[in-house]
Amino acid sequence: MKWTWVLVAVLLSFGGLSLGKESLDFPEYDGKDRVHDLNAKNYKSVMKKYDVMVVYYHDHPGSSRVAQRQFEIEEMALELAAQVLDEFDDEDIGVGLIDAKHDKVVAKKLGLDESDSVFIFTDDEVIEYDGEFAADTLVEFIYDVLEDPVEIIDNSRELKGFENIEEDIKLVGYFKSHKSEHFEAYADAAEEFHPHIKFFATFSPKIAKALELKLNEVDFYEPFMDDPVVIPGKPYTEDELVDFIEDNDRPTLRKLQPHNMYEIWEDDVDGEHIIAFAEEADPDGFEFLEILKQVAEDNTDNPDLSIVWIDPDDFPLLLPHWEKTFGIDLSSPQIGVVDADDADSVWLDMDDGDDLPSVDELEDWIEDVLSDSRACQYSNSLKNQ
Amino acid sequence: MKWTWVLVAVLLSFGGLSLGKESLDFPEYDGKDRVHDLNAKNYKSVMKKYDVMVVYYHDHPGSSRVAQRQFEIEEMALELAAQVLDEFDDEDIGVGLIDAKHDKVVAKKLGLDESDSVFIFTDDEVIEYDGEFAADTLVEFIYDVLEDPVEIIDNSRELKGFENIEEDIKLVGYFKSHKSEHFEAYADAAEEFHPHIKFFATFSPKIAKALELKLNEVDFYEPFMDDPVVIPGKPYTEDELVDFIEDNDRPTLRKLQPHNMYEIWEDDVDGEHIIAFAEEADPDGFEFLEILKQVAEDNTDNPDLSIVWIDPDDFPLLLPHWEKTFGIDLSSPQIGVVDADDADSVWLDMDDGDDLPSVDELEDWIEDVLSDSRACQYSNSLKNQ
Repeated sequence: MKWTWVLVAVLLSFGGLSLGKESLDFPEYDGKDRVHDLNAKNYKSVMKKYDVMVVYYHDHPGSSRVAQRQFEIEEMALELAAQVLDEFDDEDIGVGLIDAKHDKVVAKKLGLDESDSVFIFTDDEVIEYDGEFAADTLVEFIYDVLEDPVEIIDNSRELKGFENIEEDIKLVGYFKSHKSEHFEAYADAAEEFHPHIKFFATFSPKIAKALELKLNEVDFYEPFMDDPVVIPGKPYTEDELVDFIEDNDRPTLRKLQPHNMYEIWEDDVDGEHIIAFAEEADPDGFEFLEILKQVAEDNTDNPDLSIVWIDPDDFPLLLPHWEKTFGIDLSSPQIGVVDADDADSVWLDMDDGDDLPSVDELEDWIEDVLSDSRACQYSNSLKNQ
Repeated sequence: MKWTWVLVAVLLSFGGLSLGKESLDFPEYDGKDRVHDLNAKNYKSVMKKYDVMVVYYHDHPGSSRVAQRQFEIEEMALELAAQVLDEFDDEDIGVGLIDAKHDKVVAKKLGLDESDSVFIFTDDEVIEYDGEFAADTLVEFIYDVLEDPVEIIDNSRELKGFENIEEDIKLVGYFKSHKSEHFEAYADAAEEFHPHIKFFATFSPKIAKALELKLNEVDFYEPFMDDPVVIPGKPYTEDELVDFIEDNDRPTLRKLQPHNMYEIWEDDVDGEHIIAFAEEADPDGFEFLEILKQVAEDNTDNPDLSIVWIDPDDFPLLLPHWEKTFGIDLSSPQIGVVDADDADSVWLDMDDGDDLPSVDELEDWIEDVLSDSRACQYSNSLKNQ
């Protein structure tokens, strides 16, 4: 993760002012140092102490006052995360730092190549965190890491809960029982992608029937798609499942979220992103999102199409920055092509959202975008229509 | 707002590490002082400079090092908010501080009674912000303040967007046109509650028909309720609308959100809250939430029932604190009664979520809760069943 900014949440409590709101009191930062500086001498013994270890493999801070201050703020975010995780009863969770200048050797021994990233070491896996560097988003991600990689669907209401998940890639398989070797292969595959991709399973013939799943079969759902793809060739080995998922993990429509924002940004298509801004809580934004979903459904087989949906509500502090950088008004929906490197962009003229494009118009526009090689050409061709 | 803790988001950018992610760069904090110290001499001239003024009427910081540091962190959050809002093109938005010890007179002149609160001054209204003291949540709230108090529904897709809003109180009215005096009364009422309550209107007979609205009629929707209440006595004056809304602004089921958390907590029922924890993204949590919605729908006419739904995903840093304070496991759904003052609580035994109560069982439990006067009695009676 090469973040270029830092978001730090610092929590302090006003002891004297509680006025009976203890239930909503955030934990008071107690000033205790919990974050370990890992080095060649101590890293083994420190990491042995915890069930889960969160390691920030950071570039050596520069000597300027600003750089020092920035690093202090990062450390404070991690101290806060460590304090909150310390209160968490289920597992012992530690937090550590590795300095890329002084302790590259340690990082190498742990198998870490890329500095400026957070890695989470569990029993079996090393999971990279590629989201916002904020205590709350990081802590939330760690809770997800701690959950079982496969969630079991037992009844029809849980099935409804499964169906309600539309913003993430999800899979569901039908197996005889926990002990089935095919379920074990599925669970092993789940560990490879956990918690980025959601894995579900059922052992109930009734639920399987509702999902139209045969025994040992697994369905793969892209985000925002009602209809799944049946993974061919059941029963599958772990490797077959992993290969299929890796071949299909760039959805036609995907949502930028704080916990995955840099991961998605790095996965551009030919150096470009199609970005759609739509505020789901706003009728115009909702309308535009419905159009986007229809476009995605119509074009799910196009491997070159991946639209990144951003809900401005998720990133209030970035909104004015985006409006300036892209020269757009985010009070109404927008869609454009953004160069992933220099943020150059062109945007579809939608006349202040009064006149949203139809599904067909948007598909035509996207076809132009994908067939032209240079972004500025789309802009001109649209203007000349 | 009497917050007992502070959440501060500090953003800094690493100029040297940008690596082509400019589009996702948060604004670099530039160190410029934008937050005004308001006093008797300057407050009029400062406030005249801005279209919208955000004023933090704060208690005088104590002299201890901790208190000083805490106030610094609050100031930093406001500086960051001010910087982001400064970039915002649509309106001139200023941020100021009033010290409750030195400048009580100024606060009084501005009509502010309660210190330790943020107030937003627009042309017509003074709006209190009673949410999390975090730059991002505050900035998001101010964007909402800047939007029109009444949103117009023009077509069927926007209608679908309206129908999709379920977490907030919403109203929709059908009027002849923008110029209708009845629409004006409605818009005036909307300003009184904006942005806490969402007001919609349509001028389209087709949309009105779909909503089963007669001319000049207004429907009131509780959160999570499909069916509205028709406000009686159309056409209404502004006062009639305001009175009706004030009589109905404690919903049967409401969601605790960062921007309204203290407002909701202050609005207890007889010193107690019924709190339900349910993670919507989890099948168990989704299932429990469906049960809660059904209970709310069955009991919408019971003025003594108001269930506060908390999605733990919205408050990751509070999760271990809640688990400890309440002695519960938040990896599965929970419902309990919490004393709003001292956080004493009793919780329904749900056996790790494997065995969620039916709608009827939950209604019986809630009935017990409401009819008994002391919380510990419910707990005992449940155990003896």
